[in-house]
Amino acid sequence: MKLFTRAERFATPLLLQIVAEAARMKSSKTYPELQGKILGNVFFNPSLRTKLSFETAMLRSGGTALSISPGGGTWSFEGKFGVRMDQDRPEHLKEAVRVMSRYVDALGARSFAGLQSAEEDAGEQILSAFEEYATVPVISLESALEHPCQMVADMLTIEEILGDRTLSNQRDLPRENQYRGRNFCLRWAPHIKPLPLAVPHSSILAAAHLGMNITVAAPDGYELDERYVQQAREIACSNGGSYSEDHEPDALPENTEILSVKSWGARSLYGKQAQQAEELRKLSPWMVRESIYQKNTHLLHCLPVRRNVVITDKALDHPRSKIIDQAENRLWGQLAVLQWLFEQETRD
Amino acid sequence: MKLFTRAERFATPLLLQIVAEAARMKSSKTYPELQGKILGNVFFNPSLRTKLSFETAMLRSGGTALSISPGGGTWSFEGKFGVRMDQDRPEHLKEAVRVMSRYVDALGARSFAGLQSAEEDAGEQILSAFEEYATVPVISLESALEHPCQMVADMLTIEEILGDRTLSNQRDLPRENQYRGRNFCLRWAPHIKPLPLAVPHSSILAAAHLGMNITVAAPDGYELDERYVQQAREIACSNGGSYSEDHEPDALPENTEILSVKSWGARSLYGKQAQQAEELRKLSPWMVRESIYQKNTHLLHCLPVRRNVVITDKALDHPRSKIIDQAENRLWGQLAVLQWLFEQETRD
Amino acid sequence: MKLFTRAERFATPLLLQIVAEAARMKSSKTYPELQGKILGNVFFNPSLRTKLSFETAMLRSGGTALSISPGGGTWSFEGKFGVRMDQDRPEHLKEAVRVMSRYVDALGARSFAGLQSAEEDAGEQILSAFEEYATVPVISLESALEHPCQMVADMLTIEEILGDRTLSNQRDLPRENQYRGRNFCLRWAPHIKPLPLAVPHSSILAAAHLGMNITVAAPDGYELDERYVQQAREIACSNGGSYSEDHEPDALPENTEILSVKSWGARSLYGKQAQQAEELRKLSPWMVRESIYQKNTHLLHCLPVRRNVVITDKALDHPRSKIIDQAENRLWGQLAVLQWLFEQETRD
Repeated sequence: MKLFTRAERFATPLLLQIVAEAARMKSSKTYPELQGKILGNVFFNPSLRTKLSFETAMLRSGGTALSISPGGGTWSFEGKFGVRMDQDRPEHLKEAVRVMSRYVDALGARSFAGLQSAEEDAGEQILSAFEEYATVPVISLESALEHPCQMVADMLTIEEILGDRTLSNQRDLPRENQYRGRNFCLRWAPHIKPLPLAVPHSSILAAAHLGMNITVAAPDGYELDERYVQQAREIACSNGGSYSEDHEPDALPENTEILSVKSWGARSLYGKQAQQAEELRKLSPWMVRESIYQKNTHLLHCLPVRRNVVITDKALDHPRSKIIDQAENRLWGQLAVLQWLFEQETRD
Repeated sequence: MKLFTRAERFATPLLLQIVAEAARMKSSKTYPELQGKILGNVFFNPSLRTKLSFETAMLRSGGTALSISPGGGTWSFEGKFGVRMDQDRPEHLKEAVRVMSRYVDALGARSFAGLQSAEEDAGEQILSAFEEYATVPVISLESALEHPCQMVADMLTIEEILGDRTLSNQRDLPRENQYRGRNFCLRWAPHIKPLPLAVPHSSILAAAHLGMNITVAAPDGYELDERYVQQAREIACSNGGSYSEDHEPDALPENTEILSVKSWGARSLYGKQAQQAEELRKLSPWMVRESIYQKNTHLLHCLPVRRNVVITDKALDHPRSKIIDQAENRLWGQLAVLQWLFEQETRD
Repeated sequence: MKLFTRAERFATPLLLQIVAEAARMKSSKTYPELQGKILGNVFFNPSLRTKLSFETAMLRSGGTALSISPGGGTWSFEGKFGVRMDQDRPEHLKEAVRVMSRYVDALGARSFAGLQSAEEDAGEQILSAFEEYATVPVISLESALEHPCQMVADMLTIEEILGDRTLSNQRDLPRENQYRGRNFCLRWAPHIKPLPLAVPHSSILAAAHLGMNITVAAPDGYELDERYVQQAREIACSNGGSYSEDHEPDALPENTEILSVKSWGARSLYGKQAQQAEELRKLSPWMVRESIYQKNTHLLHCLPVRRNVVITDKALDHPRSKIIDQAENRLWGQLAVLQWLFEQETRD
């Protein structure tokens, strides 16, 4: 079964092809042929963009996305194996995933990190149950450590921004070289509580597949997961880019064209709520302000964003803030992913 | 962008045309052509009729209505501007509305009055954000002060009742004069808690556009919003009707053909829960009973209705209680509104 | 109006015909013609299989199932008649059912037993309101005492298992005699709390319509409702089978081919939560283990199932556990029921 669940399964050429297809559909307002197909999306966590963009993507393509909320109308699901199920989760994922597979043509799953234990989060218990027990294709709607659909949308958005010929001095290069060596900065921002690492991981992978020079700017102690850093570094380098880290809140690397802002928690403070909250207060000077924009800087953020906590109103409402286009690109990116997902296996 | 959000935007002729179209669709069981259109309905408050009638209206027309519940599966939305978003609402309406506009073909919004401050309710904060930031047409599913879709359904229902030739001695008049000067009474009723003014406002506007003689019967202190009273008075008069007020619980004006019953809160008691509850208990004699029916009186109520608190069983189950037809007309009225909403702007 | 709500309305020939139609659709992957039809499913209780299988059944057939959750986005419904509605349920079922009937083409209702009073449960208050006030066909999605869609799925699953020619020594018999006299055991199992009787009732009725020899194995005090026992006994006997009871936790009747496992509460402990919980702990040896399988035993359970409370992992994961096929058959059974439900009355 096809899985669109883990970055490590996707080589740069496949992703570039999916993004190119997304761009083609966006410019021509055409949609894949998914007549009668049903996608069953299971949301263990809230969603606006993901839910609505998948629902509309399927409708635009002649199909339907059904949203399933464990614990909200539907039974809560147990994900641990071998346990005595005598608590508040009456149904095991092993049954739920196999049963849902009999009704729908593909399954999606959203399950955020618990941020209590890095080891547990790395286990991707829920996503793994979908991968193992589904008998239909599976798509990740954001798991503990990754958000691959956000990665595709980010790639499409960066291509749109940097592919703008008024900006680019590389316009005669083949498309796959056009983003090589241009500067991307993922910058940490404060929040009222620790957030998962899935989006920042997918954000650096997006830039890596485009061969950009990546800088991750975050306070000491706010490192990303080493496995994803390693992947991003290797992919960026093999595509002509680079990877480095920085701890500077007030200035971006020179000539930063793409500034992707995101908050995430410190691994050493997992489960230590009071301490993490205290530290977040101290780090409030990291809030992104209008002054951070350089001449060619464009702002990305996956949304939702807490205004005047993460990013100021002025920075969010800046003409080169591309957050709404980026959100729209969730739709187009997913249309291309869905087209790939529903293609016959034999056509891979 | 087209907006079906505020009564003041609609002149009598446009509303009569929408109602006529609704009647035509109902009698011929035909539906607008909205093939592939997607309406995104955002519900900040509960709904049965509105949600289900919009969902079925879109399906009957070849499209789909998707329902979005902020705080229930979807992030809660902040509507205040310039605030530091460090509380329990992680997404600002400014982003949410712009993003949703990229996925759907039109947006609906339901946001009840808070009944804490008349000034704040008059601000229509949430509806205004949809009007300002949506880049697709917007339809109100009931806001703090108005329920325009209920107004259309009420107009259609009144036309059906009074257009009945066995009742009407005006049957040779042109349609637009058929309801002129016939008697409509909006009568206050008790409840277990204060309710918003949106439905009573739209109820008197419905009668006003039909040129009826309007009487609002309510206890002292339960006045409607002056702005809406003024509008209803002017519209009624300009259409050949009238507007007056009454404080009599036990008798209707003579020859009342349409009796619209609704409960609403006293403005002077906004935010004073205990006092309002106490006063509601004292006003329980205002409960509508079967004895209120005159020979040609027909009962309307927007539903839901608390039986034996607002209206007695016998009065609700009376043969001239038209509450179910009125609820059905939500569907037909909205089909006509949707047809108008999705028509090309150039055809206005 | 057609009702698919109570077993007593269905004679064996109609049910066998529905099951045969379900089997035909499953093997040919064809669906009924329900183009544009809308089913409104009202869920007073949680659901995974029922909700998703109805939604996908309608979509596969060209229609749509809309799910309505009283109290979750929709107003809570009052079901008692003649009461003063001054509590937390603002809408009466009498209005809700009549209104919904104006919007959709058929209604479904799920309302579990309260398990506080056997008399009240037997009243089937909510289901009865749908039967009485709906002006469109009604289908039960599980009521207090019955789950007729589960019954159809169980019949289809048993036919698939026993119709397997490698097992059957009756293969030259006409289809209606093929299951006659083969052994079916409904076996009680422990749980963390008392559960309703609807599924066990429908389970024995499924076997009865197939003419099987039914044994119900449960601890003393865990008798089924006498009315359903009587029905099952009569139907089984008239179809060539039998009905008996047993209180043995550790062994099945010899040559049990179908073992249907389910937990349910003791009527004498209705409303006595602490006592019931204590007794359930004492009955934990009734947990179904792998050792219960005989040479030709196949396991059924309606799901959700609490692993290692109701049935052990090993018994659930046994090659002759048919729980996932049984869940899939909800879809095919309901497709056949929906086809019957939407057929013109004149064709009955």
